[in-house]
Amino acid sequence: MKTILLIGIGPGDPDALTLAAIKAIGRADVFFFLEKEGEGKDSLIRFRQQILQTHRGDQSYRTATVALPERDRETAGYVGAVEDWHRRRTALIATLIDTEMAEGETAGMLIWGDPSLYDGAIQHLRDLIESGRADLSFEVIPGITSIQMLAARHKIPLNRIGESITITTGRQIEQADPASITNAVVMLDSRAAFRRLEGAGDVDIYWGGDVGGPDEILIAGPLDAVADRIERAIALQRARKGWIMDNYLLRRRPQPS
Amino acid sequence: MKTILLIGIGPGDPDALTLAAIKAIGRADVFFFLEKEGEGKDSLIRFRQQILQTHRGDQSYRTATVALPERDRETAGYVGAVEDWHRRRTALIATLIDTEMAEGETAGMLIWGDPSLYDGAIQHLRDLIESGRADLSFEVIPGITSIQMLAARHKIPLNRIGESITITTGRQIEQADPASITNAVVMLDSRAAFRRLEGAGDVDIYWGGDVGGPDEILIAGPLDAVADRIERAIALQRARKGWIMDNYLLRRRPQPS
Repeated sequence: MKTILLIGIGPGDPDALTLAAIKAIGRADVFFFLEKEGEGKDSLIRFRQQILQTHRGDQSYRTATVALPERDRETAGYVGAVEDWHRRRTALIATLIDTEMAEGETAGMLIWGDPSLYDGAIQHLRDLIESGRADLSFEVIPGITSIQMLAARHKIPLNRIGESITITTGRQIEQADPASITNAVVMLDSRAAFRRLEGAGDVDIYWGGDVGGPDEILIAGPLDAVADRIERAIALQRARKGWIMDNYLLRRRPQPS
Repeated sequence: MKTILLIGIGPGDPDALTLAAIKAIGRADVFFFLEKEGEGKDSLIRFRQQILQTHRGDQSYRTATVALPERDRETAGYVGAVEDWHRRRTALIATLIDTEMAEGETAGMLIWGDPSLYDGAIQHLRDLIESGRADLSFEVIPGITSIQMLAARHKIPLNRIGESITITTGRQIEQADPASITNAVVMLDSRAAFRRLEGAGDVDIYWGGDVGGPDEILIAGPLDAVADRIERAIALQRARKGWIMDNYLLRRRPQPS
């Protein structure tokens, strides 16, 4: 048997780690790092290395790093391109399992946020097991998501009384009927999709850049009033450090009854 | 100044606590407990007491406990009844702040799961500050939700590629068009609302009772095949310990293309 631990490490605050994550870090013989190429995300890699240093201390461990192919962002077929990218990632993980783990060993993968939310690793491992790897098992250790950190930093509830919340992507917001959005958290938006809801006059935005980390920025207010400021903050952070991870809550104000 | 720490403690696994939550527990002079009356939830109270014992050790602290009025569940106007209940809870917290905290002190409230999700405390404190209490501030420490624990235990991603997720309530599911539900996590369902989607033939359910805790039950499969088993498990757990906290993911299988 070989065991993989998918360890949620939260959105960038070392104190967002759970005790279960720390225990899981203590169990792994080897850690797998799948690094995206050429995105200048050195500080993300450094964050994970610091977590290992803090929580493994003197206890030795191995690491195995592979470069991740860049996802083809130009293809018209989004789902097809993502599925192809998933297949290539799954094959890379299979190779790591075959070449970097001895029988009976445990490998850890440190997953940004929570492994169950907008991360492919759970599906990669399910695919490997379904394709016949009976000697493989895995465990999932939940981590704090950037959504929870966003709400905590803005000190707001994600839901109002009895209301639903939708967690969605910038891409979905670009295609959705703006009138259908009443309470939505948007992830993975690289193109300021929130601007589609401008002019409605009754939408508030609670936006966060790199929430939980040392470069955190928070902006909140009526969307029409703060949209420009948010776009400038995104551009500035990208210029300064090469990347930004941002998310936001769009919330329609109740109609006066 | 008086400071309140709203500390998410996760869904019932002591190891789901974050380092930030443990640090916050260490900062509080007094802990507020708002206990629902007559629900036989002794083990929930015990869980929080154990957390304090584990993470405060010998360091002394005070506790202040008030009985929460039961929410009026018979009233036709759901939102009105909940709002009234919120006002009474807010007043109780105000009293605790006035009578149990000295100037400059810090109080902790241990919140099941995450304070930002289906919990009233953030709104109570916002209301108190907005109503003129300029001497009050609060912080939110995110906790692992039962949703994340559900996904981790079933080893499934919450979202499929590029897809949205809705987080909603049993009450909303009872009123929704079943065809509109493709990927939804349902919380606070006390009346087996999932049965409304039976017979559709293409819906899977991933159900969890008391996920993360010692009484965890997991059931997954096609909704039509496992709905009876889930209802029996709920009834059994209620009979055995007086309560159950359950949630589930409803997911429509993709149409063959």
